[in-house]
Amino acid sequence: MAENHGGSGGNGILSVVGTGPGSADYLTPAALNALRQADVIIGYRTYLDLIASIIEEKEVVASAMMQEVDRVNRAFDLAEQGRHIALVSGGDPGIYAMAGLVYEVAEARASDTEIRVIAGVAALNVCAERLGAPLMHDFATISLSDLLTPWDVIETRVRAAVGADFVLVIYNPRSKKRDWQLARVLEIVTDMRGTQTVVGMVHAATREDEKVIVTTVAQFDPKLADMQTLVIIGNSATYIRNDRMITPRGYKEKYRLA
Amino acid sequence: MAENHGGSGGNGILSVVGTGPGSADYLTPAALNALRQADVIIGYRTYLDLIASIIEEKEVVASAMMQEVDRVNRAFDLAEQGRHIALVSGGDPGIYAMAGLVYEVAEARASDTEIRVIAGVAALNVCAERLGAPLMHDFATISLSDLLTPWDVIETRVRAAVGADFVLVIYNPRSKKRDWQLARVLEIVTDMRGTQTVVGMVHAATREDEKVIVTTVAQFDPKLADMQTLVIIGNSATYIRNDRMITPRGYKEKYRLA
Repeated sequence: MAENHGGSGGNGILSVVGTGPGSADYLTPAALNALRQADVIIGYRTYLDLIASIIEEKEVVASAMMQEVDRVNRAFDLAEQGRHIALVSGGDPGIYAMAGLVYEVAEARASDTEIRVIAGVAALNVCAERLGAPLMHDFATISLSDLLTPWDVIETRVRAAVGADFVLVIYNPRSKKRDWQLARVLEIVTDMRGTQTVVGMVHAATREDEKVIVTTVAQFDPKLADMQTLVIIGNSATYIRNDRMITPRGYKEKYRLA
Repeated sequence: MAENHGGSGGNGILSVVGTGPGSADYLTPAALNALRQADVIIGYRTYLDLIASIIEEKEVVASAMMQEVDRVNRAFDLAEQGRHIALVSGGDPGIYAMAGLVYEVAEARASDTEIRVIAGVAALNVCAERLGAPLMHDFATISLSDLLTPWDVIETRVRAAVGADFVLVIYNPRSKKRDWQLARVLEIVTDMRGTQTVVGMVHAATREDEKVIVTTVAQFDPKLADMQTLVIIGNSATYIRNDRMITPRGYKEKYRLA
């Protein structure tokens, strides 16, 4: 197979490293160690800028434009030279991100590179934190990107989740090209759960331009969302207190709280 | 209101700190800083043992037996003396954990203590990492604990999620007293999605007694699960490769992978 160029291992290592939402406060020691141990770091420019101080002495392959599939193949090309490659993923590579594509490409290439996934603090974790406590009860996580999933499958899932009173966590709510899907979801929520349903939105969590909104579906403007935004829609019991959204777990019915 | 005992602030601070799955490799700098800044650390004994070296010079209130509601009230009692209290939560306090109860108790007590939630790497993040890449597509997170939720609501959610082909993330799958619920979920999955549906289980992720199983619903023994276990059930496209469970995102239909 691949030649051994004297790197980290005979067949190389590909670490898929979750760097969290952006701020170094949420970068785990596991991720930091993987970045330090790697010979080469590959990632989308935005994510690399966030960890610039850590990676300044490394060989870096920044890919502003490269497609995800090409980026992963490039990572395997380098790993198969016997080197340790860190493929950087914002948030958690295990949630709608690079981990799956890495395993799928490994299979397609029949690569025997060692794959290591390192979980990170995902958008859903940190956005829930910023919004209050919206995920105290069962929740359904749905991506509105119809690039790889037909819209009717997405809408069926939204209806099923709203019907069974899940909290909804909406990934990829809106982009320049996908400008009507979030509004459609809000329509469904309004019809099935009512205009006073609580909606929370976090843009660019932990970064300089972070923006947090907690409101009702009647008041919420879907145009505020973009690809750096996560939207969380409460269940029928979610309420607002001091600008935070709180989904009660049900203690109140069972215990005296104070 | 409360007297000021010269602590961190006039009205005190209550930090709800997610310490991740167990290993210090997943403890974020944000969590570490909050623990270091706190005057008093409160938590369930198991979680405190995991961060023993960090907290050795702190005043510690370990609660082996104390009920959650009592523990949170104790934290407010101390914070209202003007001190900074860190309430430790394993995993992420924002997912089925202490964040919500803290906000609810604050309201019940009409407390003006400053509340800070610090997200952590949750069980779902790290268990997905251990299992491969099961969360590459839409997923529904459901707790099987019927202490605060009637079982028929839980079963309705399971059916809705399986029907709409969500991946299922099962929290609190089984305890000594709740010994039939997971088997019931597996029955529903078998009926609706078939015997070859992939099931993954992680017990005590990142700890010494970690155990990872990837198998099919036909082969899976629910008796292996307990309260330290997370179960992830694949969607109709999830497959097993090299003992890992992978939910494809759909690239294969659209791109050449290698």
